[in-house]
Amino acid sequence: MTPPQASPSYRATDRTVPTRARERASHDRELVHAILDETSVCHLGFLRDGAPVVLPTLYGRVGDTLYVHGSTGSRPLRTAGRAGQTGPGLAVCLTVTHVDGLVLARSAFHHSINYRSVVVHGTARPVTDPEEQRAALDALVDHVLPGRSSDSRPANARELAATAVLRLDLDEVSAKVRTGPPADDPQDGALPYWTGVVPLVRGYGAPVPADDLDPSVPLPSYLSAL
Amino acid sequence: MTPPQASPSYRATDRTVPTRARERASHDRELVHAILDETSVCHLGFLRDGAPVVLPTLYGRVGDTLYVHGSTGSRPLRTAGRAGQTGPGLAVCLTVTHVDGLVLARSAFHHSINYRSVVVHGTARPVTDPEEQRAALDALVDHVLPGRSSDSRPANARELAATAVLRLDLDEVSAKVRTGPPADDPQDGALPYWTGVVPLVRGYGAPVPADDLDPSVPLPSYLSAL
Repeated sequence: MTPPQASPSYRATDRTVPTRARERASHDRELVHAILDETSVCHLGFLRDGAPVVLPTLYGRVGDTLYVHGSTGSRPLRTAGRAGQTGPGLAVCLTVTHVDGLVLARSAFHHSINYRSVVVHGTARPVTDPEEQRAALDALVDHVLPGRSSDSRPANARELAATAVLRLDLDEVSAKVRTGPPADDPQDGALPYWTGVVPLVRGYGAPVPADDLDPSVPLPSYLSAL
Repeated sequence: MTPPQASPSYRATDRTVPTRARERASHDRELVHAILDETSVCHLGFLRDGAPVVLPTLYGRVGDTLYVHGSTGSRPLRTAGRAGQTGPGLAVCLTVTHVDGLVLARSAFHHSINYRSVVVHGTARPVTDPEEQRAALDALVDHVLPGRSSDSRPANARELAATAVLRLDLDEVSAKVRTGPPADDPQDGALPYWTGVVPLVRGYGAPVPADDLDPSVPLPSYLSAL
């Protein structure tokens, strides 16, 4: 029997079915994970004094859980630690977007962007178990660069005490994807404007060693393979 | 006399002075504009049923005003059109982030990201003046690719009627920037881990013409110059 966590799709809810461009939306688990794993910076939305705040932050993924972290003194992490109606937690929306191309239609109206995004709704709750905290911090480092957490000095007790970690379960989550060429109105087909897609490319430049790096330390394989 | 809008800095408010890493924050107008003008996709945060929502969307800039747009049927744009306590408007936070590099310290704790971000707090209000709407839509297209709006078919009356535009004044806005090498603790200097920065590079691939593009239409100069 297939365990529930291996379901191929996340559930659809009012919050995860868009009102617009519904054909671009998906709840496919593999797609959601693939989009999340391609980068390590998300935009995290939460409320401060009743108003929305959106901040970029790192995240890590372990199965169907995302982790974000910050100083124990930071505002969202302090807020998440306070008791709410359902225990400590912070209502959040976590969004990850890859911009893949500029879509140039003949009409200004049909200009668009090729993109892949994931939007997660939920409550971010403080991680209090020390083992989960450590695993989450490893996941955050390895999400940036797989293999790096075991090739750096682990956090000590003081650093762990200064770092708050929040977990956000992947439950109300959806992906949205636009690919392909422009979709001009048929009657615009003869207009003399260039039309097509300009791909955006991302990659890594050559690693720049710190000035004080001991020259006998080799470039690790996870960097030479980038 | 220097007009107020040419002030070199935006004002600092409770919302635009971070509690953490204050030395990375800036209200410098030129820096804010430069970060905003380097890309055309932001993450827009607002409230829906009291919960935060963060969606990627295009934006354009005209001086000290940002514009976002969408279908008149989309939820945030419908909400913004409703009368609030201070007239129609939607409380938003609009954030733009460039990830410039992975910062690999010897300690897991000091790992970081080099980035440049701008966070705008404010109320997005519907644009009702037809001239401003048209100029805003041109700015949105030209923000993606300067020069493109005049090299495409302008929106017709039906398209304009279907498109809602919101304006967000740059007033409560700040930039945050991290650059440079890792900042390890001095006592970690002899640890045998590679340390430095891995730059992230972004660029454009070769434009891909649509299948139905008339081959006699030349590649425009704003594309060949990318």
